[in-house]
Amino acid sequence: MINELRAVNIGICGLGTVGGGTFSLLQNHEELLAARAGTSVKVKHVGARRDNPECPTGDTPVSRDIFDVARDPDVHVLVEMIGGTTVARELVEAALRAGKHVVTANKALIAEAGNELFALAAQHGVALRYEAAVAGGIPIIKALREGLAGNEIHWLAGIINGTGNFILTEMRDKGRAFDEVLKEAQALGYAEADPTFDVEGIDAAHKLVILASLAFGIPMSVDAVFAEGITKLTPEDLGYAEELGYRVKHLGVAKQSSEGIELRVHPTLIPESRLLANVNGVKNAVLVEGDAVGPTLYYGAGAGAQPTASAVVADIVDLARELAAGQLCPVPSLGVAPEALKSPSFVSMSDVVTPWYLRLEAEDRPGVMSEVTSLLGEQGISIEALIQKAPGTGQTRVPVIVITNAARQGDLETAVAAIEALPTITGTIARIRVESLDG
Amino acid sequence: MINELRAVNIGICGLGTVGGGTFSLLQNHEELLAARAGTSVKVKHVGARRDNPECPTGDTPVSRDIFDVARDPDVHVLVEMIGGTTVARELVEAALRAGKHVVTANKALIAEAGNELFALAAQHGVALRYEAAVAGGIPIIKALREGLAGNEIHWLAGIINGTGNFILTEMRDKGRAFDEVLKEAQALGYAEADPTFDVEGIDAAHKLVILASLAFGIPMSVDAVFAEGITKLTPEDLGYAEELGYRVKHLGVAKQSSEGIELRVHPTLIPESRLLANVNGVKNAVLVEGDAVGPTLYYGAGAGAQPTASAVVADIVDLARELAAGQLCPVPSLGVAPEALKSPSFVSMSDVVTPWYLRLEAEDRPGVMSEVTSLLGEQGISIEALIQKAPGTGQTRVPVIVITNAARQGDLETAVAAIEALPTITGTIARIRVESLDG
Repeated sequence: MINELRAVNIGICGLGTVGGGTFSLLQNHEELLAARAGTSVKVKHVGARRDNPECPTGDTPVSRDIFDVARDPDVHVLVEMIGGTTVARELVEAALRAGKHVVTANKALIAEAGNELFALAAQHGVALRYEAAVAGGIPIIKALREGLAGNEIHWLAGIINGTGNFILTEMRDKGRAFDEVLKEAQALGYAEADPTFDVEGIDAAHKLVILASLAFGIPMSVDAVFAEGITKLTPEDLGYAEELGYRVKHLGVAKQSSEGIELRVHPTLIPESRLLANVNGVKNAVLVEGDAVGPTLYYGAGAGAQPTASAVVADIVDLARELAAGQLCPVPSLGVAPEALKSPSFVSMSDVVTPWYLRLEAEDRPGVMSEVTSLLGEQGISIEALIQKAPGTGQTRVPVIVITNAARQGDLETAVAAIEALPTITGTIARIRVESLDG
Repeated sequence: MINELRAVNIGICGLGTVGGGTFSLLQNHEELLAARAGTSVKVKHVGARRDNPECPTGDTPVSRDIFDVARDPDVHVLVEMIGGTTVARELVEAALRAGKHVVTANKALIAEAGNELFALAAQHGVALRYEAAVAGGIPIIKALREGLAGNEIHWLAGIINGTGNFILTEMRDKGRAFDEVLKEAQALGYAEADPTFDVEGIDAAHKLVILASLAFGIPMSVDAVFAEGITKLTPEDLGYAEELGYRVKHLGVAKQSSEGIELRVHPTLIPESRLLANVNGVKNAVLVEGDAVGPTLYYGAGAGAQPTASAVVADIVDLARELAAGQLCPVPSLGVAPEALKSPSFVSMSDVVTPWYLRLEAEDRPGVMSEVTSLLGEQGISIEALIQKAPGTGQTRVPVIVITNAARQGDLETAVAAIEALPTITGTIARIRVESLDG
């Protein structure tokens, strides 16, 4: 039981895109939010190293030292919008220690330091909420933590990086190369100047860690994720996938079985009829398979000032309702009490089983295909579909596309190494995992 | 503040498909639910007029008089699974008056009596939760009430009746007539012996009322919904829609604008590229457009024992967490405090503006089309697309398909009456609304 608050005062630290979006959403919807929260919600203090010309703060006090906000006795809820994991972590720790509730959109911080930060929040009797950390405005954290609480979650698969999905959508629609589309995404503001976090799957890996933690009731396990980016994908591979009835998406996949837990981010062929295959541009979507409910999907804007602010403000409204009533809702941060979190065992990537898409460059003469299929067969891998293209004028080599049946990654790698060693095969073999995503 | 409970005791009234599914889900996931709820959750009493051979109750006491469960001092949460609005209402009222929390999947009860029941619950300091009342296992109630609380909701559109969507999917895929597919749906158990509630849009209307109430912060307004069923749709209309790039879905649509609120359930042409257009079979999906987040979509199983039980158990886990902590979460039943609910003003159907699909049977001779377009033009209605079919062998009449631009329904009806009066036009004109569903 805490004191019942007549008005809930918000401090916002960081006034960039999302911080500014949150500030203006709270201002614009003051009346609506008061009706929903049952109390008035006001921004009392902003901490920002510089002004944001697109977000005038009016007569709200602004401190250049963001830690002033954590020290302000009038602030009840601190909204961390500065990003990164160093100063942001210090700020969140300072706020929690000062007895303030914290709302953040910082996926890296939650994935890397969530275990410690949730414990610190509990120790000080305050809340740390993070709906905006995954999939922007889509309320997927609440869905996993509360809406699907009656289910054992078998697996989830998500398009959880809008930049990557924009790039893949453009490559497919216009047959353009990765580098060219990346430059356009940077010009449009969808990709950072240093795009590593997005295109190498690091951002998606952080989000996947958070989703998996909620879905399976395990601690944040950032070291357990395998992440492969989209930089090596070619418009040709996207086109061949399409000929075979698939789309290529950059997925985060978390699975739980008797073998253990798989956490992986990688380009993936998925059947074109799946809803996830039709999520395009900067949109995000997460497909969750629960044992009672079956498959459910959550779709929407995964980034951007207003969509992310929507999720931040949802957390603020929840907190304001609770603070007005004088008690935090007893929903555990990760959906189970800390002492009930399981110690996960993870499946090594070489033991992960999926079908595979392979593209090889072969000499156009009899017997080559039989060598390839027999090397696959030696590892117990059979073939689901195969396309052999006619050679171009004056060409003696042809692209061959293979979709295998489900194969252990270690076995697939052995077979691929053997095939690459054949004198009739040129260069390396392009490899992309396949997921059927059926329930 | 209420007493903190060491164990939360559930009473289930009604042991049909969903009641039985809830019973077995609670039994099968006892350990998982205890970890999520932070307390043990046990079925202590079942009320059922007869046994369900598919759901053995073991040593759980079963009363033939369901009101015994409402009177049982050991029951903390009563789960109403009997359906209908007469006995179910008496039971829920009795339970609330006895200080029990209630969980229900009963959309008709909430839509028709929710205003009174929520007030009664508040008066007795107990909770009435209803996640399972709309869209089965999809946590859409929580998404609207909490996850999107930072948004003004402009509109929502949903496929919220699985039976109807199954019938339309079969009609489209196999070119079969409504009556034939309905019989199959009945044989498969997807449709009731009396299918009126599903195929005439009454079930969808109940669900739409609940969604609109949460989205717009208005009381349940069951008398304000316009409902048109799917019984007059033909495979021909579904086929012509497809030629024009559309799919036909039975949608519930709620819109809020300066003109007022629209609540309507009707067959609708939607562009085939929309995710909603690709929701097939018995699946449900709800598309919600918020001003900050933009469009978000929620997809999953809208009916069935286990998916509905998933939503019922989500409510039970929420309640168990709260009861173990000794205080209900202060989330208002309709997303705003009762005194903050707005008095809605509704748009009359004749003032609703949408594009229209029209199919007419016309004489195949020059001048007919110009008469039709000029009668539409007199009402200010222009044409977006038109298909005129070649006449069959020996036929002198041809089907003409028109998609209009956005038109006021009253004006469209005036034009249609004038067109039907033309001597060159045979019979009545088939009319279906069109929604673009763009953000």
